Amino acid sequence: MARKKKGLLLVVSGPAGVGKGTVNAELMRRHPEIRMSVSATTRAPRPGEIDGVHYFFRTKEEFDRMIEENAFLEYMHVFGMNYYGTPRAFVDAEREKGNHVILEIDVKGAMRVKETCPDAVLVFIAPPSLKILKDRLVGRGTETQESIDVRTATALEELKLLPKYDYMVINDVVDEAVSEMECILTAELCRTDRNHDLINKLTGGETI
Amino acid sequence: MARKKKGLLLVVSGPAGVGKGTVNAELMRRHPEIRMSVSATTRAPRPGEIDGVHYFFRTKEEFDRMIEENAFLEYMHVFGMNYYGTPRAFVDAEREKGNHVILEIDVKGAMRVKETCPDAVLVFIAPPSLKILKDRLVGRGTETQESIDVRTATALEELKLLPKYDYMVINDVVDEAVSEMECILTAELCRTDRNHDLINKLTGGETI
Repeated sequence: MARKKKGLLLVVSGPAGVGKGTVNAELMRRHPEIRMSVSATTRAPRPGEIDGVHYFFRTKEEFDRMIEENAFLEYMHVFGMNYYGTPRAFVDAEREKGNHVILEIDVKGAMRVKETCPDAVLVFIAPPSLKILKDRLVGRGTETQESIDVRTATALEELKLLPKYDYMVINDVVDEAVSEMECILTAELCRTDRNHDLINKLTGGETI
Repeated sequence: MARKKKGLLLVVSGPAGVGKGTVNAELMRRHPEIRMSVSATTRAPRPGEIDGVHYFFRTKEEFDRMIEENAFLEYMHVFGMNYYGTPRAFVDAEREKGNHVILEIDVKGAMRVKETCPDAVLVFIAPPSLKILKDRLVGRGTETQESIDVRTATALEELKLLPKYDYMVINDVVDEAVSEMECILTAELCRTDRNHDLINKLTGGETI
């Protein structure tokens, strides 16, 4: 189709327990052309984990070389810990095919991606309230009280960075949150600053 | 509803024959809460035209006073011709109620509105090609060849200003164009810079 466009990079953050995974899974179920970004890591694969599917498993030397080659949209290394990063090549290749890529990442990672990929679309999934977030964490039944307190405090810190995101989607009813995500993708594809080629064709007399 | 938001001002432009009216009418049919902005003019009402519905009919003196009072989002006056303008009060009142307002206006008018109302959303409805636009004008059967040539030339000039708009919607299939407009409204309401109040409530521990 003549109007086929470059896909979007959708950077999705949100506090633990807000339902990012559920929202993204439903979005991908509705749109099979959406891909989930695959991270690279130096940690060892766990049983059942497949290279290139769950992670790109790399040695420390390979990871360091990728850093030198500017092969990451963002990466993180805490001294003495494993490296984690978002390889640029996978994201770029999918976007060139017209597929959207979702990158689920924490607030600091999202800020790094905004630097290296200014046309990324940053979406923050927020709970209807901190109380509801806490209730959801309690409802999981898998978190200790201490873990819940830490996560709630972290959530508050993350929410304060919400204005640095382009969009906020409140995950109250999952279906509605997913529909809003769909609209964000559609609207972003209509932005004139993503359509300079089409505009040039149009003013040049071509059909788009 | 706690999450009720200020409505949007949607400024819609596009060349003659592109189908702005059809797209906007269908959008309003799907969303009865959307209003069409009512212009003020100094021209005399035509038979059947109702003040406040088709236009706000004003005398030249009243219009001049409104200009002085900064009561217009934009206005236009060509020497010796009637005045036309977009009264700010109607737009603001509807938006405060949470209703969206559509303002159908030419490219120059849209640029004036962008100055006086920086949070307006500017959408340009484009044809799939200039050729198709011309065919539609011919298909109307009401335009002279000269009028068609003038309109096509004007359309090309207007298309060159497309990058000054926020969004472009291609009116190929009306239903798809309307769905894109709906998504633009939804996505704009999710923009963090339109949600500072909600973000403050959320970080303050309130439910939104």
